[in-house]
Amino acid sequence: MMTALDSPPLGLILADIVRSHRPRSEAGSIPAGIPHLASPPFDRFGIAVATTSGDVFSAGDADLPFSIQSISKVFTLAMALGADDPGTLWSRVLREPSGTSFNSLVQLEVEHGIPRNPFINSGALVVTDHLTERFPDAAGHVLQFLRDQAGPHGGRQGPFIDEAAAKSELANSSRNLALAHFLKDFGNLHRPAEAVVENYVRQCSIMMSCVEVAKAGLFLARGGRGTNGTVLSRSEAKRIGSIMLTCGMYDAAGEFAYRVGLPGKSGVGGGILVVVPGECSICVWSPRLDSKGNSLAGTAALADLSDRTGWSVF
Amino acid sequence: MMTALDSPPLGLILADIVRSHRPRSEAGSIPAGIPHLASPPFDRFGIAVATTSGDVFSAGDADLPFSIQSISKVFTLAMALGADDPGTLWSRVLREPSGTSFNSLVQLEVEHGIPRNPFINSGALVVTDHLTERFPDAAGHVLQFLRDQAGPHGGRQGPFIDEAAAKSELANSSRNLALAHFLKDFGNLHRPAEAVVENYVRQCSIMMSCVEVAKAGLFLARGGRGTNGTVLSRSEAKRIGSIMLTCGMYDAAGEFAYRVGLPGKSGVGGGILVVVPGECSICVWSPRLDSKGNSLAGTAALADLSDRTGWSVF
Amino acid sequence: MMTALDSPPLGLILADIVRSHRPRSEAGSIPAGIPHLASPPFDRFGIAVATTSGDVFSAGDADLPFSIQSISKVFTLAMALGADDPGTLWSRVLREPSGTSFNSLVQLEVEHGIPRNPFINSGALVVTDHLTERFPDAAGHVLQFLRDQAGPHGGRQGPFIDEAAAKSELANSSRNLALAHFLKDFGNLHRPAEAVVENYVRQCSIMMSCVEVAKAGLFLARGGRGTNGTVLSRSEAKRIGSIMLTCGMYDAAGEFAYRVGLPGKSGVGGGILVVVPGECSICVWSPRLDSKGNSLAGTAALADLSDRTGWSVF
Amino acid sequence: MMTALDSPPLGLILADIVRSHRPRSEAGSIPAGIPHLASPPFDRFGIAVATTSGDVFSAGDADLPFSIQSISKVFTLAMALGADDPGTLWSRVLREPSGTSFNSLVQLEVEHGIPRNPFINSGALVVTDHLTERFPDAAGHVLQFLRDQAGPHGGRQGPFIDEAAAKSELANSSRNLALAHFLKDFGNLHRPAEAVVENYVRQCSIMMSCVEVAKAGLFLARGGRGTNGTVLSRSEAKRIGSIMLTCGMYDAAGEFAYRVGLPGKSGVGGGILVVVPGECSICVWSPRLDSKGNSLAGTAALADLSDRTGWSVF
Repeated sequence: MMTALDSPPLGLILADIVRSHRPRSEAGSIPAGIPHLASPPFDRFGIAVATTSGDVFSAGDADLPFSIQSISKVFTLAMALGADDPGTLWSRVLREPSGTSFNSLVQLEVEHGIPRNPFINSGALVVTDHLTERFPDAAGHVLQFLRDQAGPHGGRQGPFIDEAAAKSELANSSRNLALAHFLKDFGNLHRPAEAVVENYVRQCSIMMSCVEVAKAGLFLARGGRGTNGTVLSRSEAKRIGSIMLTCGMYDAAGEFAYRVGLPGKSGVGGGILVVVPGECSICVWSPRLDSKGNSLAGTAALADLSDRTGWSVF
Repeated sequence: MMTALDSPPLGLILADIVRSHRPRSEAGSIPAGIPHLASPPFDRFGIAVATTSGDVFSAGDADLPFSIQSISKVFTLAMALGADDPGTLWSRVLREPSGTSFNSLVQLEVEHGIPRNPFINSGALVVTDHLTERFPDAAGHVLQFLRDQAGPHGGRQGPFIDEAAAKSELANSSRNLALAHFLKDFGNLHRPAEAVVENYVRQCSIMMSCVEVAKAGLFLARGGRGTNGTVLSRSEAKRIGSIMLTCGMYDAAGEFAYRVGLPGKSGVGGGILVVVPGECSICVWSPRLDSKGNSLAGTAALADLSDRTGWSVF
Repeated sequence: MMTALDSPPLGLILADIVRSHRPRSEAGSIPAGIPHLASPPFDRFGIAVATTSGDVFSAGDADLPFSIQSISKVFTLAMALGADDPGTLWSRVLREPSGTSFNSLVQLEVEHGIPRNPFINSGALVVTDHLTERFPDAAGHVLQFLRDQAGPHGGRQGPFIDEAAAKSELANSSRNLALAHFLKDFGNLHRPAEAVVENYVRQCSIMMSCVEVAKAGLFLARGGRGTNGTVLSRSEAKRIGSIMLTCGMYDAAGEFAYRVGLPGKSGVGGGILVVVPGECSICVWSPRLDSKGNSLAGTAALADLSDRTGWSVF
Repeated sequence: MMTALDSPPLGLILADIVRSHRPRSEAGSIPAGIPHLASPPFDRFGIAVATTSGDVFSAGDADLPFSIQSISKVFTLAMALGADDPGTLWSRVLREPSGTSFNSLVQLEVEHGIPRNPFINSGALVVTDHLTERFPDAAGHVLQFLRDQAGPHGGRQGPFIDEAAAKSELANSSRNLALAHFLKDFGNLHRPAEAVVENYVRQCSIMMSCVEVAKAGLFLARGGRGTNGTVLSRSEAKRIGSIMLTCGMYDAAGEFAYRVGLPGKSGVGGGILVVVPGECSICVWSPRLDSKGNSLAGTAALADLSDRTGWSVF
């Protein structure tokens, strides 16, 4: 349940969280097989909170751009639902937790080509395929949305695609190509496998700062209303929140629901987007990961923040 | 997020929900292989709400006892955690959604004998085993707790074990015996398999009314504080809520999270217990089930109630 | 155990087998998703036996070319082993029965990219990849081998690739492309996935008659010695025979071992190649299939032939 | 293919095989969780051959009794088939290789309670159940058969059940009890799970020497004719041979088919029974096991013997 924010004010809390959680050693791991994610210094740590009342608080490396990776799945899903004939997308992907690895082909075979949810890779490919049918440059469409939501950037660059990183990841996309061809074999991919995987990889290669991600995710805390108007119906925004809570943290959704108690979506770039319904959108970033692929320091910081503010849906 | 209750008052809403959702035909199914659950008339429907402020509202067949079946897993888990050396139980069972059938042996084999969560059958057997180590009559211990929570009953009987039903289910417990022996093979069952399954079956055969279940579950809406004192720490109550939300509705947890947006636990007897953190505990009952094993009319009624009251964690 | 052939002579036996087993109705099925295999009349039936003493007996439609499909896997394996640095191929593919569907991705994931045997699709792709490393036109290389083994053809065409059929199958190769990319993800595919699948599809589209297949397979009955010299060592020929017996008939290897008792390899084109070690090589063809994907009439005919001749390894 | 035995005579070959293969170190492993199998000295090694012409050759520790363990599955299957209404047993268990661990519950769940073959544990439990329906003391019935087949023993004891070992194994039978209850849940176990597992464990605890096992298995090399008359039809004997070849060596059936080329059945007691159809029955024993659970020295010795004698079905 939500509680009002008392003293100390949020800015001070965030500054203190950075002090407590900025990594002091190379604990945790870096994602295997993604060369351009191997480089960030272990001690990067940023956090930003965008409130429904229009304020933005941040601390640490909150203005450094990082690779949003799977956090993009939240935004692509929102885009696809916004462009959807009602119910079309939900006939192609389920909304249930998977209980298996995020890039497993096993469950896809057992379920005859219907991915368990939009946040495992096979499900995200279906979502991207769906969006690509309407917008051939799906990744560019997502990018434009993120720029619109993140708003004016002063001297900053705003969200952009790291094209070199995308190219490098595309050259190592065998697993995703396998998933895409497998979906196609089941009749659940409409565009060519290569085109869908390319859009998928490019959307994952979008670079954003914590501040930008928090601002871009704010529509989920506001029942679907974005910076410049309605992004989604309240019902679909609620749907995305429930999928984030049950499926957003790879195979640690249950643990995250307990420790943090909020809908979240992580990426192997070390970012996590969290939604406090009606209150705010939060983004934390620190590059090194725990054994489940979620930011080690980021998860700890969010648990701490939840304890300090009382933000939790339970 | 929670909203204050405006008019119409809750009692009128519940009465209207009974009018709208009491089944008019034999839609849905009855559970296979449980003889004593084959009998209830299809048009039974009851609902009760126990609020944190001490009120109880109800409508329909809210005072008829029904077999709580898997709803008992919530209470047994609470009892086991209350009697736990910190962390002991959580080393024997995970807290993640399973993605497979509630009584599957497959995932248990893949996970080397550690059940995915306390609400699939293998996990519930571990919880019962844990409780049985402390209280050999574990089912009786759970029953006593439920009687204490449900409070004085006027002329009513209060929670009781349907011993004939328990005996009948025990004679058809091959799958649960297989799970129990399998757990034992992995070293994750301490008491004899037969004793654990007997306690498990007896706790599932507890008969309660909607009013009694709602009152018994109220401690989960009050951060662990029960009728006669603390049942659990706030942290453990939150834990149970998060497990209910991610794992409480068999393979429809994601769908329920979207449609109802509240932590819930269903049983094949047709009951569902739902928690609105800080507000109230709800029990709905109607015997016929959907394809996932959850009460057909009960789920629809809860979605309706959530829409009318705004009760939702998202 | 092998017994000498008594009267009646083999030619008469084969003619009688054609009379008994040529289909009289459209029993059985045709393979799904391969347009050019949907056409053959249901009553096609041919059988040929090539003996180690140099004779060839045949009856029925034994000179009609048909699509050899997965029978090609035997020859590609022989080619790959012949061109192999000792042991290289066997580090990339196992020799054990699979117990799952021939084109399943599940076991491949469980076994971390090492296919169970060379006759399931994933294993055959690894074999083709191996051969393609040495011979970029692997399918052409296999075709040339088959022409050499099948010998002069009088007025007949000899083995050839049905290029239209290959093109059509290639356009429906999503499952095989998924398997190939999946193998690549595990580092167990060296050439580009598309090139390997193309060679694989083209080798499957080779057209041969029963007489040609029987002659081409004779080296397996002669300890590796082919028409024009040694194809394989005796040890590798024995290896292929044992793999045929344990893995050659999709998920009916055990049943075939019992009913026929001989190493065999079937294709969805309706052909089956069988080896009687030291005695002869047999090919039967009839297009309609049983539920496991093996020729319905062909399997029955081979069981009959085994009973009449005593040919069996058991 | 079979070749005649030339010089050196078989007795000398066996003596030489003992010299070459008797273990000189503690290579290999002992079975986990079976206390009474942890004790045999690593350098025990025996071999015996019983020919269809009535001779018995042996060398090494061929008269020392050892625990036959899963070799018993061959004899129980023969007994069950001998007592079977035609086809009854084969409606309850398949004849296909499994591709998964011998005591896995996964495939049983996927196949809805029909074990893949009679030599994985679930299949053997069905066979024992089938036999127990006719002979409540099924293990005693199998023992009597083995005594009859092994013939007069001079001063030796003949086959016997190690009751202390059986009792110890029975106390560690959780996995088999899980399998039995699981089968019962699918309706594929007719007698009580506990009774079936007890018979199963007792038949596995039969102690026999290499000479006795070779003599007892001779009916399989003679088309079903045993010491005192017909045990099985020729057809059923051939069936058992084909199941041994495809499923007899746990997850190394394919490798064994290649290296040895003969139908075999191993036990974790270190024994292996091999059949040369029409020629002889062989038993080798050496207690330490390879990673698949088959006798390390025994498998090597059989490969050597196959090379020296030309005994192979391929």
